[in-house]
Amino acid sequence: MIPQTTRDELFDLIGSLTSDRLSAQLRFVVEIDRLKTILRRTPIIDLSRRENDAEHSWHLAMMAMLLREFASPGVDVDKALRMLLVHDIVEIDAGDTFLYDETGQEDQDEREQRAADRLFGMLPAEQGTDLRALWDEFEAHESETARFARTMDRLQPFLHNIFTGGAMWREHGVNAAQVRKRMAVIADGSSQLHQLVLGLLDEAVRREFLPAGPAA
Amino acid sequence: MIPQTTRDELFDLIGSLTSDRLSAQLRFVVEIDRLKTILRRTPIIDLSRRENDAEHSWHLAMMAMLLREFASPGVDVDKALRMLLVHDIVEIDAGDTFLYDETGQEDQDEREQRAADRLFGMLPAEQGTDLRALWDEFEAHESETARFARTMDRLQPFLHNIFTGGAMWREHGVNAAQVRKRMAVIADGSSQLHQLVLGLLDEAVRREFLPAGPAA
Ligand SMILES: [Ca+2]
Repeated sequence: MIPQTTRDELFDLIGSLTSDRLSAQLRFVVEIDRLKTILRRTPIIDLSRRENDAEHSWHLAMMAMLLREFASPGVDVDKALRMLLVHDIVEIDAGDTFLYDETGQEDQDEREQRAADRLFGMLPAEQGTDLRALWDEFEAHESETARFARTMDRLQPFLHNIFTGGAMWREHGVNAAQVRKRMAVIADGSSQLHQLVLGLLDEAVRREFLPAGPAA
Repeated sequence: MIPQTTRDELFDLIGSLTSDRLSAQLRFVVEIDRLKTILRRTPIIDLSRRENDAEHSWHLAMMAMLLREFASPGVDVDKALRMLLVHDIVEIDAGDTFLYDETGQEDQDEREQRAADRLFGMLPAEQGTDLRALWDEFEAHESETARFARTMDRLQPFLHNIFTGGAMWREHGVNAAQVRKRMAVIADGSSQLHQLVLGLLDEAVRREFLPAGPAA
Protein backbone atom coordinates (compact mmCIF):
# COMPACT_ATOMS: atom_id res chain seq x y z
CA MET A 1 0.00 0.00 0.00
CA ILE A 2 1.34 3.47 -0.76
CA PRO A 3 1.59 5.80 2.27
CA GLN A 4 -1.68 7.46 3.34
CA THR A 5 -0.04 10.89 2.92
CA THR A 6 0.75 10.17 -0.75
CA ARG A 7 -2.78 8.97 -1.21
CA ASP A 8 -4.20 12.12 0.35
CA GLU A 9 -1.94 14.28 -1.84
CA LEU A 10 -3.15 12.43 -4.94
CA PHE A 11 -6.77 12.99 -3.97
CA ASP A 12 -6.01 16.67 -3.32
CA LEU A 13 -4.51 16.88 -6.80
CA ILE A 14 -7.62 15.25 -8.29
CA GLY A 15 -9.65 17.84 -6.39
CA SER A 16 -7.66 20.64 -8.00
CA LEU A 17 -7.77 19.10 -11.51
CA THR A 18 -11.47 18.37 -11.68
CA SER A 19 -14.90 18.94 -10.13
CA ASP A 20 -15.65 18.10 -6.48
CA ARG A 21 -18.27 15.76 -7.81
CA LEU A 22 -15.95 13.61 -9.96
CA SER A 23 -13.37 13.81 -7.21
CA ALA A 24 -15.82 12.27 -4.69
CA GLN A 25 -16.84 9.60 -7.20
CA LEU A 26 -13.22 8.58 -7.75
CA ARG A 27 -12.56 8.39 -4.01
CA PHE A 28 -15.43 5.91 -3.84
CA VAL A 29 -14.11 3.97 -6.88
CA VAL A 30 -10.75 3.62 -5.11
CA GLU A 31 -12.35 2.79 -1.73
CA ILE A 32 -14.46 -0.07 -3.05
CA ASP A 33 -11.36 -1.82 -4.34
CA ARG A 34 -11.22 -3.14 -0.77
CA LEU A 35 -14.20 -5.40 -1.49
CA LYS A 36 -11.64 -7.62 -3.29
CA THR A 37 -10.04 -8.33 0.09
CA ILE A 38 -13.21 -9.33 1.95
CA LEU A 39 -13.22 -13.12 2.03
CA ARG A 40 -16.30 -15.30 2.17
CA ARG A 41 -16.51 -18.77 3.73
CA THR A 42 -17.10 -20.37 0.32
CA PRO A 43 -14.10 -21.49 -1.76
CA ILE A 44 -13.92 -20.91 -5.50
CA ILE A 45 -14.81 -24.06 -7.43
CA ASP A 46 -11.21 -25.21 -8.10
CA LEU A 47 -10.74 -25.15 -4.28
CA SER A 48 -7.53 -23.12 -4.62
CA ARG A 49 -8.67 -20.39 -2.22
CA ARG A 50 -11.66 -18.65 -0.63
CA GLU A 51 -13.90 -16.44 -2.72
CA ASN A 52 -13.91 -12.68 -2.21
CA ASP A 53 -16.96 -10.41 -2.23
CA ALA A 54 -16.08 -8.54 -5.44
CA GLU A 55 -15.77 -11.63 -7.64
CA HIS A 56 -18.82 -13.13 -5.88
CA SER A 57 -20.82 -10.00 -6.83
CA TRP A 58 -19.68 -10.35 -10.44
CA HIS A 59 -20.79 -13.97 -10.50
CA LEU A 60 -24.23 -13.08 -9.11
CA ALA A 61 -24.73 -10.32 -11.67
CA MET A 62 -23.81 -12.78 -14.46
CA MET A 63 -26.32 -15.28 -13.05
CA ALA A 64 -29.05 -12.63 -13.00
CA MET A 65 -28.34 -12.01 -16.70
CA LEU A 66 -28.26 -15.69 -17.57
CA LEU A 67 -31.25 -16.80 -15.51
CA ARG A 68 -33.50 -13.81 -16.19
CA GLU A 69 -36.21 -16.07 -17.61
CA PHE A 70 -36.74 -17.40 -14.05
CA ALA A 71 -37.66 -13.93 -12.85
CA SER A 72 -41.37 -13.26 -12.32
CA PRO A 73 -42.90 -10.62 -14.63
CA GLY A 74 -42.61 -7.83 -12.02
CA VAL A 75 -38.81 -8.11 -11.81
CA ASP A 76 -36.62 -5.34 -13.27
CA VAL A 77 -33.63 -7.49 -14.21
CA ASP A 78 -31.28 -4.57 -14.96
CA LYS A 79 -32.06 -3.21 -11.52
CA ALA A 80 -31.50 -6.65 -9.91
CA LEU A 81 -28.13 -6.68 -11.61
CA ARG A 82 -27.18 -3.26 -10.19
CA MET A 83 -28.48 -4.39 -6.81
CA LEU A 84 -26.25 -7.46 -6.88
CA LEU A 85 -23.20 -5.39 -7.81
CA VAL A 86 -23.82 -3.17 -4.78
CA HIS A 87 -25.28 -5.63 -2.24
CA ASP A 88 -22.05 -6.58 -0.45
CA ILE A 89 -20.24 -3.21 -0.46
CA VAL A 90 -21.11 -2.60 3.20
CA GLU A 91 -18.98 -5.64 4.04
CA ILE A 92 -15.90 -3.45 3.41
CA ASP A 93 -16.52 -2.14 6.93
CA ALA A 94 -18.86 -4.75 8.41
CA GLY A 95 -17.15 -7.92 7.17
CA ASP A 96 -18.87 -10.99 5.75
CA THR A 97 -21.47 -12.54 8.06
CA PHE A 98 -21.69 -16.28 7.59
CA LEU A 99 -25.18 -17.41 6.52
CA TYR A 100 -25.16 -20.17 9.16
CA ASP A 101 -23.73 -18.08 12.03
CA GLU A 102 -26.66 -17.00 14.18
CA THR A 103 -24.57 -15.13 16.76
CA GLY A 104 -22.78 -12.99 14.17
CA GLN A 105 -26.13 -12.07 12.69
CA GLU A 106 -27.30 -10.39 15.89
CA ASP A 107 -25.34 -7.16 15.52
CA GLN A 108 -24.93 -7.53 11.74
CA ASP A 109 -27.72 -5.11 10.98
CA GLU A 110 -26.26 -2.31 13.12
CA ARG A 111 -22.74 -2.81 11.73
CA GLU A 112 -24.03 -2.80 8.17
CA GLN A 113 -26.15 0.32 8.65
CA ARG A 114 -23.10 2.20 9.96
CA ALA A 115 -21.05 0.92 7.03
CA ALA A 116 -23.72 2.04 4.57
CA ASP A 117 -23.76 5.52 6.16
CA ARG A 118 -20.02 5.89 5.77
CA LEU A 119 -19.54 4.30 2.36
CA PHE A 120 -22.54 5.61 0.42
CA GLY A 121 -22.00 8.91 2.25
CA MET A 122 -18.71 9.34 0.35
CA LEU A 123 -20.65 9.93 -2.88
CA PRO A 124 -22.35 13.12 -4.12
CA ALA A 125 -25.59 13.28 -2.09
CA GLU A 126 -28.19 12.22 -4.65
CA GLN A 127 -25.97 9.43 -5.98
CA GLY A 128 -25.28 8.13 -2.47
CA THR A 129 -29.02 8.17 -1.80
CA ASP A 130 -29.70 6.17 -4.99
CA LEU A 131 -27.15 3.49 -4.13
CA ARG A 132 -28.32 3.34 -0.55
CA ALA A 133 -31.91 2.89 -1.76
CA LEU A 134 -30.78 0.01 -3.97
CA TRP A 135 -29.05 -1.63 -1.02
CA ASP A 136 -32.02 -0.99 1.32
CA GLU A 137 -34.35 -2.57 -1.23
CA PHE A 138 -32.12 -5.64 -1.46
CA GLU A 139 -31.90 -5.96 2.32
CA ALA A 140 -35.67 -5.62 2.80
CA HIS A 141 -36.26 -8.43 0.24
CA GLU A 142 -39.83 -7.30 -0.19
CA SER A 143 -39.89 -6.24 -3.84
CA GLU A 144 -39.96 -8.91 -6.54
CA THR A 145 -36.68 -7.53 -7.89
CA ALA A 146 -35.00 -7.91 -4.51
CA ARG A 147 -36.34 -11.46 -4.17
CA PHE A 148 -34.97 -12.43 -7.54
CA ALA A 149 -31.60 -10.92 -6.54
CA ARG A 150 -31.67 -12.87 -3.27
CA THR A 151 -32.40 -16.07 -5.20
CA MET A 152 -29.13 -15.56 -7.07
CA ASP A 153 -27.31 -14.82 -3.78
CA ARG A 154 -28.50 -18.15 -2.30
CA LEU A 155 -28.14 -20.25 -5.44
CA GLN A 156 -24.54 -19.31 -6.22
CA PRO A 157 -22.89 -20.51 -2.96
CA PHE A 158 -25.14 -23.60 -3.09
CA LEU A 159 -23.71 -24.46 -6.52
CA HIS A 160 -20.20 -23.79 -5.20
CA ASN A 161 -20.89 -26.27 -2.42
CA ILE A 162 -22.25 -28.89 -4.79
CA PHE A 163 -19.33 -28.55 -7.22
CA THR A 164 -16.69 -28.63 -4.46
CA GLY A 165 -18.13 -31.81 -2.91
CA GLY A 166 -19.55 -29.79 0.00
CA ALA A 167 -16.18 -28.30 1.05
CA MET A 168 -17.62 -25.37 3.00
CA TRP A 169 -20.51 -27.39 4.49
CA ARG A 170 -18.08 -29.96 5.87
CA GLU A 171 -15.58 -27.39 7.11
CA HIS A 172 -18.29 -25.59 9.08
CA GLY A 173 -20.36 -28.61 10.14
CA VAL A 174 -23.48 -27.55 8.25
CA ASN A 175 -26.20 -30.20 7.73
CA ALA A 176 -28.83 -30.59 4.99
CA ALA A 177 -31.69 -29.55 7.27
CA GLN A 178 -29.97 -26.19 7.82
CA VAL A 179 -29.28 -25.77 4.11
CA ARG A 180 -32.89 -26.64 3.25
CA LYS A 181 -34.07 -23.91 5.63
CA ARG A 182 -31.74 -21.30 4.09
CA MET A 183 -32.69 -22.29 0.54
CA ALA A 184 -36.45 -22.05 1.18
CA VAL A 185 -36.49 -18.41 0.00
CA ILE A 186 -35.40 -19.54 -3.48
CA ALA A 187 -39.01 -20.70 -3.89
CA ASP A 188 -40.08 -17.02 -3.66
CA GLY A 189 -37.92 -16.33 -6.70
CA SER A 190 -38.53 -19.47 -8.75
CA SER A 191 -40.12 -22.84 -7.94
CA GLN A 192 -38.18 -24.53 -10.78
CA LEU A 193 -34.86 -23.43 -9.26
CA HIS A 194 -36.05 -24.41 -5.78
CA GLN A 195 -37.02 -27.94 -6.92
CA LEU A 196 -33.62 -28.37 -8.52
CA VAL A 197 -31.85 -27.27 -5.33
CA LEU A 198 -33.84 -29.80 -3.27
CA GLY A 199 -32.97 -32.60 -5.71
CA LEU A 200 -29.27 -31.71 -5.65
CA LEU A 201 -29.30 -31.47 -1.87
CA ASP A 202 -30.68 -35.03 -1.58
CA GLU A 203 -27.91 -36.22 -3.87
CA ALA A 204 -25.32 -34.32 -1.81
CA VAL A 205 -26.50 -36.21 1.30
CA ARG A 206 -26.32 -39.54 -0.57
CA ARG A 207 -22.76 -38.70 -1.63
CA GLU A 208 -21.90 -37.65 1.95
CA PHE A 209 -21.03 -34.06 0.98
CA LEU A 210 -22.88 -33.20 4.22
CA PRO A 211 -24.92 -35.02 6.90
CA ALA A 212 -28.72 -35.08 6.68
CA GLY A 213 -29.20 -33.50 10.10
CA PRO A 214 -32.34 -33.89 12.23
CA ALA A 215 -35.46 -35.07 10.36
CA ALA A 216 -37.97 -32.30 9.65
CA MET B 1 -11.06 -29.64 -7.41
CA ILE B 2 -13.49 -32.56 -7.24
CA PRO B 3 -12.81 -35.37 -9.78
CA GLN B 4 -14.06 -34.72 -13.32
CA THR B 5 -16.13 -37.93 -13.14
CA THR B 6 -18.02 -36.65 -10.06
CA ARG B 7 -18.57 -33.36 -11.84
CA ASP B 8 -19.92 -35.10 -14.93
CA GLU B 9 -22.23 -37.23 -12.75
CA LEU B 10 -23.55 -34.10 -11.04
CA PHE B 11 -24.26 -32.45 -14.39
CA ASP B 12 -25.99 -35.65 -15.56
CA LEU B 13 -28.14 -35.51 -12.45
CA ILE B 14 -29.01 -31.86 -13.14
CA GLY B 15 -29.93 -32.93 -16.68
CA SER B 16 -32.33 -35.53 -15.27
CA LEU B 17 -33.82 -33.17 -12.64
CA THR B 18 -34.50 -30.19 -14.88
CA SER B 19 -34.74 -28.89 -18.46
CA ASP B 20 -31.84 -29.14 -20.92
CA ARG B 21 -31.97 -25.40 -21.10
CA LEU B 22 -31.42 -24.72 -17.38
CA SER B 23 -28.91 -27.53 -17.32
CA ALA B 24 -26.81 -25.80 -20.05
CA GLN B 25 -27.12 -22.46 -18.27
CA LEU B 26 -25.82 -23.94 -15.02
CA ARG B 27 -22.88 -25.59 -16.78
CA PHE B 28 -21.95 -22.11 -18.02
CA VAL B 29 -22.44 -20.59 -14.53
CA VAL B 30 -20.02 -23.18 -13.12
CA GLU B 31 -17.55 -22.83 -16.03
CA ILE B 32 -17.20 -19.05 -15.69
CA ASP B 33 -16.11 -19.45 -12.07
CA ARG B 34 -12.69 -19.94 -13.69
CA LEU B 35 -12.55 -16.22 -14.54
CA LYS B 36 -11.66 -15.77 -10.85
CA THR B 37 -8.37 -17.57 -11.53
CA ILE B 38 -7.29 -15.49 -14.55
CA LEU B 39 -4.76 -12.98 -13.24
CA ARG B 40 -4.11 -9.57 -14.71
CA ARG B 41 -0.82 -7.68 -14.58
CA THR B 42 -2.33 -5.00 -12.33
CA PRO B 43 -2.22 -5.46 -8.53
CA ILE B 44 -5.17 -4.63 -6.32
CA ILE B 45 -4.72 -1.26 -4.62
CA ASP B 46 -3.44 -2.61 -1.28
CA LEU B 47 -0.67 -4.32 -3.30
CA SER B 48 -1.33 -7.66 -1.57
CA ARG B 49 -1.75 -9.61 -4.84
CA ARG B 50 -2.60 -9.36 -8.54
CA GLU B 51 -6.13 -8.62 -9.61
CA ASN B 52 -8.24 -11.30 -11.29
CA ASP B 53 -10.58 -10.83 -14.24
CA ALA B 54 -13.81 -11.49 -12.31
CA GLU B 55 -13.26 -8.84 -9.63
CA HIS B 56 -11.90 -6.48 -12.32
CA SER B 57 -15.16 -6.91 -14.27
CA TRP B 58 -17.16 -6.13 -11.13
CA HIS B 59 -15.14 -2.96 -10.57
CA LEU B 60 -15.71 -1.80 -14.16
CA ALA B 61 -19.45 -2.41 -13.93
CA MET B 62 -19.54 -0.37 -10.69
CA MET B 63 -17.63 2.43 -12.42
CA ALA B 64 -20.09 2.44 -15.32
CA MET B 65 -22.91 2.88 -12.77
CA LEU B 66 -21.08 5.59 -10.86
CA LEU B 67 -19.77 7.55 -13.84
CA ARG B 68 -22.84 7.26 -16.07
CA GLU B 69 -23.11 11.06 -16.28
CA PHE B 70 -19.90 11.02 -18.37
CA ALA B 71 -21.58 8.87 -21.01
CA SER B 72 -22.69 10.65 -24.18
CA PRO B 73 -26.48 10.71 -24.78
CA GLY B 74 -26.35 7.73 -27.19
CA VAL B 75 -24.96 5.36 -24.53
CA ASP B 76 -27.18 2.60 -23.10
CA VAL B 77 -25.61 2.42 -19.63
CA ASP B 78 -27.37 -0.80 -18.57
CA LYS B 79 -26.05 -2.42 -21.73
CA ALA B 80 -22.54 -1.08 -21.09
CA LEU B 81 -22.76 -2.64 -17.67
CA ARG B 82 -23.73 -6.06 -19.08
CA MET B 83 -20.97 -5.66 -21.67
CA LEU B 84 -18.39 -5.06 -18.97
CA LEU B 85 -19.53 -8.09 -16.99
CA VAL B 86 -19.04 -10.26 -20.08
CA HIS B 87 -16.06 -8.58 -21.79
CA ASP B 88 -13.26 -10.69 -20.28
CA ILE B 89 -14.95 -14.12 -20.21
CA VAL B 90 -13.02 -15.27 -23.30
CA GLU B 91 -9.85 -14.96 -21.22
CA ILE B 92 -10.87 -18.18 -19.44
CA ASP B 93 -9.41 -19.92 -22.50
CA ALA B 94 -7.33 -17.19 -24.14
CA GLY B 95 -5.63 -15.74 -21.03
CA ASP B 96 -5.08 -12.08 -20.28
CA THR B 97 -3.20 -10.16 -22.97
CA PHE B 98 -1.16 -7.36 -21.48
CA LEU B 99 -2.13 -3.95 -22.89
CA TYR B 100 1.53 -3.07 -23.49
CA ASP B 101 2.59 -6.44 -24.98
CA GLU B 102 2.59 -6.02 -28.76
CA THR B 103 3.77 -9.58 -29.52
CA GLY B 104 1.04 -11.23 -27.45
CA GLN B 105 -1.53 -9.11 -29.26
CA GLU B 106 -0.68 -10.65 -32.65
CA ASP B 107 -2.56 -13.92 -32.19
CA GLN B 108 -4.85 -12.56 -29.48
CA ASP B 109 -7.75 -12.08 -31.84
CA GLU B 110 -7.68 -15.66 -33.13
CA ARG B 111 -7.36 -17.13 -29.60
CA GLU B 112 -10.22 -15.01 -28.33
CA GLN B 113 -12.51 -15.87 -31.24
CA ARG B 114 -11.96 -19.60 -30.56
CA ALA B 115 -12.62 -19.03 -26.86
CA ALA B 116 -15.84 -17.14 -27.63
CA ASP B 117 -17.00 -20.01 -29.89
CA ARG B 118 -16.46 -22.57 -27.14
CA LEU B 119 -17.69 -20.59 -24.14
CA PHE B 120 -20.74 -18.80 -25.53
CA GLY B 121 -21.45 -22.04 -27.46
CA MET B 122 -22.15 -23.78 -24.13
CA LEU B 123 -25.36 -21.75 -23.71
CA PRO B 124 -28.79 -22.30 -25.28
CA ALA B 125 -28.40 -21.04 -28.86
CA GLU B 126 -30.23 -17.70 -28.75
CA GLN B 127 -28.71 -16.81 -25.38
CA GLY B 128 -25.19 -17.67 -26.58
CA THR B 129 -25.81 -15.49 -29.64
CA ASP B 130 -26.93 -12.57 -27.45
CA LEU B 131 -23.87 -12.75 -25.21
CA ARG B 132 -21.57 -13.17 -28.20
CA ALA B 133 -23.14 -10.09 -29.80
CA LEU B 134 -22.50 -8.12 -26.63
CA TRP B 135 -18.86 -9.21 -26.63
CA ASP B 136 -18.47 -8.55 -30.38
CA GLU B 137 -19.89 -5.05 -29.90
CA PHE B 138 -17.41 -4.36 -27.09
CA GLU B 139 -14.49 -5.66 -29.15
CA ALA B 140 -15.42 -3.60 -32.21
CA HIS B 141 -15.57 -0.44 -30.04
CA GLU B 142 -17.62 1.32 -32.69
CA SER B 143 -20.89 1.95 -30.86
CA GLU B 144 -21.07 4.76 -28.30
CA THR B 145 -22.00 2.18 -25.66
CA ALA B 146 -18.89 0.12 -26.42
CA ARG B 147 -16.72 3.24 -26.31
CA PHE B 148 -18.07 4.19 -22.92
CA ALA B 149 -17.40 0.64 -21.71
CA ARG B 150 -13.85 0.83 -23.07
CA THR B 151 -13.32 4.12 -21.25
CA MET B 152 -14.04 2.31 -17.97
CA ASP B 153 -11.71 -0.54 -18.98
CA ARG B 154 -8.83 1.91 -19.53
CA LEU B 155 -9.54 4.21 -16.60
CA GLN B 156 -9.70 1.49 -13.93
CA PRO B 157 -6.15 0.06 -14.33
CA PHE B 158 -4.87 3.63 -14.72
CA LEU B 159 -6.32 4.49 -11.30
CA HIS B 160 -4.83 1.29 -9.89
CA ASN B 161 -1.46 2.39 -11.19
CA ILE B 162 -1.80 5.88 -9.75
CA PHE B 163 -2.89 4.60 -6.33
CA THR B 164 -0.17 1.96 -6.14
CA GLY B 165 2.59 4.44 -6.96
CA GLY B 166 2.91 2.98 -10.48
CA ALA B 167 3.61 -0.60 -9.28
CA MET B 168 2.69 -2.30 -12.55
CA TRP B 169 4.25 0.39 -14.76
CA ARG B 170 7.57 0.01 -12.98
CA GLU B 171 7.47 -3.78 -12.91
CA HIS B 172 6.91 -3.91 -16.67
CA GLY B 173 9.04 -0.92 -17.70
CA VAL B 174 6.15 1.09 -19.10
CA ASN B 175 6.74 4.82 -19.74
CA ALA B 176 4.36 7.79 -19.77
CA ALA B 177 4.47 8.15 -23.56
CA GLN B 178 3.13 4.58 -23.88
CA VAL B 179 0.46 5.19 -21.26
CA ARG B 180 -0.60 8.43 -22.98
CA LYS B 181 -1.05 6.53 -26.25
CA ARG B 182 -3.19 3.81 -24.60
CA MET B 183 -5.29 6.36 -22.74
CA ALA B 184 -6.06 8.44 -25.86
CA VAL B 185 -9.28 6.46 -26.46
CA ILE B 186 -10.67 7.75 -23.16
CA ALA B 187 -11.21 11.03 -25.03
CA ASP B 188 -13.77 9.20 -27.25
CA GLY B 189 -15.73 8.40 -24.10
CA SER B 190 -15.29 11.65 -22.14
CA SER B 191 -12.97 14.64 -22.55
CA GLN B 192 -13.30 15.52 -18.84
CA LEU B 193 -12.04 12.08 -17.82
CA HIS B 194 -9.28 12.27 -20.45
CA GLN B 195 -8.05 15.65 -19.17
CA LEU B 196 -7.93 14.30 -15.63
CA VAL B 197 -5.93 11.25 -16.74
CA LEU B 198 -3.39 13.50 -18.50
CA GLY B 199 -3.03 15.68 -15.39
CA LEU B 200 -2.53 12.66 -13.14
CA LEU B 201 -0.02 11.15 -15.56
CA ASP B 202 2.11 14.32 -15.44
CA GLU B 203 2.06 14.13 -11.64
CA ALA B 204 3.00 10.43 -11.79
CA VAL B 205 6.08 11.34 -13.84
CA ARG B 206 6.99 14.11 -11.37
CA ARG B 207 6.69 11.59 -8.52
CA GLU B 208 8.79 9.05 -10.49
CA PHE B 209 6.01 6.45 -10.57
CA LEU B 210 7.18 5.92 -14.17
CA PRO B 211 9.68 7.50 -16.59
CA ALA B 212 8.49 10.11 -19.10
CA GLY B 213 9.74 8.13 -22.11
CA PRO B 214 10.60 9.66 -25.52
CA ALA B 215 9.18 13.17 -26.09
CA ALA B 216 6.13 13.22 -28.37
CA1 LIG C 1 -22.99 -11.56 2.08
